[in-house]
Amino acid sequence: MKIKPIGNRILVELLKVEEKTSSGIILPSTGETNSSNIGMVVAIGNIEEEIKLGDKIFFKPHSGTKIPDSNKKLLILEMEDILAILG
Amino acid sequence: MKIKPIGNRILVELLKVEEKTSSGIILPSTGETNSSNIGMVVAIGNIEEEIKLGDKIFFKPHSGTKIPDSNKKLLILEMEDILAILG
Amino acid sequence: MKIKPIGNRILVELLKVEEKTSSGIILPSTGETNSSNIGMVVAIGNIEEEIKLGDKIFFKPHSGTKIPDSNKKLLILEMEDILAILG
Amino acid sequence: MKIKPIGNRILVELLKVEEKTSSGIILPSTGETNSSNIGMVVAIGNIEEEIKLGDKIFFKPHSGTKIPDSNKKLLILEMEDILAILG
Amino acid sequence: MKIKPIGNRILVELLKVEEKTSSGIILPSTGETNSSNIGMVVAIGNIEEEIKLGDKIFFKPHSGTKIPDSNKKLLILEMEDILAILG
Amino acid sequence: MKIKPIGNRILVELLKVEEKTSSGIILPSTGETNSSNIGMVVAIGNIEEEIKLGDKIFFKPHSGTKIPDSNKKLLILEMEDILAILG
Amino acid sequence: MKIKPIGNRILVELLKVEEKTSSGIILPSTGETNSSNIGMVVAIGNIEEEIKLGDKIFFKPHSGTKIPDSNKKLLILEMEDILAILG
Repeated sequence: MKIKPIGNRILVELLKVEEKTSSGIILPSTGETNSSNIGMVVAIGNIEEEIKLGDKIFFKPHSGTKIPDSNKKLLILEMEDILAILG
Repeated sequence: MKIKPIGNRILVELLKVEEKTSSGIILPSTGETNSSNIGMVVAIGNIEEEIKLGDKIFFKPHSGTKIPDSNKKLLILEMEDILAILG
Repeated sequence: MKIKPIGNRILVELLKVEEKTSSGIILPSTGETNSSNIGMVVAIGNIEEEIKLGDKIFFKPHSGTKIPDSNKKLLILEMEDILAILG
Repeated sequence: MKIKPIGNRILVELLKVEEKTSSGIILPSTGETNSSNIGMVVAIGNIEEEIKLGDKIFFKPHSGTKIPDSNKKLLILEMEDILAILG
Repeated sequence: MKIKPIGNRILVELLKVEEKTSSGIILPSTGETNSSNIGMVVAIGNIEEEIKLGDKIFFKPHSGTKIPDSNKKLLILEMEDILAILG
Repeated sequence: MKIKPIGNRILVELLKVEEKTSSGIILPSTGETNSSNIGMVVAIGNIEEEIKLGDKIFFKPHSGTKIPDSNKKLLILEMEDILAILG
Repeated sequence: MKIKPIGNRILVELLKVEEKTSSGIILPSTGETNSSNIGMVVAIGNIEEEIKLGDKIFFKPHSGTKIPDSNKKLLILEMEDILAILG
């Protein structure tokens, strides 16, 4: 079964990443991905915008709607909640 | 008697589904479908959009208006409350 | 004396109906039609939309403005408060 | 001195009417017209709509701005606060 | 020094008027013009509308911004706060 | 170093002026310019409107964002916060 | 790893600057850049506006979303939160 976002929405898998960027960014690596606001785009709705599958994104804290899942952290976001692509 | 949604609205039958998706999703199977936000589209208003009859959908928690019914869980949703199609 | 709704408004007579629909819907039959949100369209404002005189409608709970009346329950509704036609 | 409503506004004289309509409506006849929401249109602003001078109207409760007056109850209403014409 | 309202704004001098209108209106004559909402238009911004210099107007209670002044009561109003012209 | 306002914004230097206008206006002369809402336009963003450099303006009380400065009172205002030009 | 702002957003590095401007501005030099609202533009989203890379900007206090980082203070701002360029 697949999940196809509607309209200007995006399906995101929350990331647990520990990585030091060239800009000095340290992405969080705690088990509590609940509070993370970094994820990977796994499905895109009806949007012709700057985002594509596989993009790592930074989004507004506490935005989106969680989908109940077993081994991943899935979240439906509105396009306007996405702040930046981590490339 | 039939129920025909008006404007950008959709009639949804709430689902009690237990199913493990390829993405690892487990749809809820408790008797308390009251709090579920997964349903099947059973009627569509005046909408030319991505949704069609029979689609299983994921919608915003606590959205929509319940219709009193005997043996099903029926809900009128606004199009904008639908987040994703589960296909 | 007649009541002619203005603009996108509709005059509705609240219904006390007990009826089991093919979809299993039981319309409420208590005396307390005050809290009902099912009615029949008895007058229509300046609207070219999906609604017509005599339609039984389902509307948002607690919407509309009551008109004082003696033997009927009359309500002025905005078009956007109407959720579905019961046909 | 006359009162000319500006823009989409209407000047209304509050009515103390006791009348049983064909629809069974009883218009209020208490002395407390303060709380009434039935009035007669006595002046109209810059509006090309369904309302005309002399119309008896039903408007949203507690809407409008009172004009201080000696022997009448005068109210400036926004067009959008008028719900129906009693004709 | 003159005061030139910007955009859709109007400069109003608050009135202390005692006058019985043909409609029976009594304009307030207390010393407390602070709470009055009747004034005369003394300057107009960039507006092509129904209002002109010298008009006596009735405006929304508690709207506008007071200008500190010595012997007059001056108020800057938004056009949308003006309800009627008293002509 | 210069301060260039962005978009529909304006840089204002707060005024401590004591002056009796022909309209009888007395501009405030207390040391507490913090609470003043009269200033002089010292820079303008991307605006084609009624305002120009050097204009003395009257603006909405408590609007704008203060810029930390040593010997002047500088404020960034939105165009819509400016009510009148004192000319 | 780079951070590419989406839509009308801008990536800003918070500044700790002590500098007396010709206008008499003293930019803050405390260690607490957390509360600063002065920064340098390090990346720009999909915007054709007055801002460019390297601009020192003054933005609305308490606006934007912090990105967790090791040795810099990075913030994603909406274009509308930027008040002025310090040039």
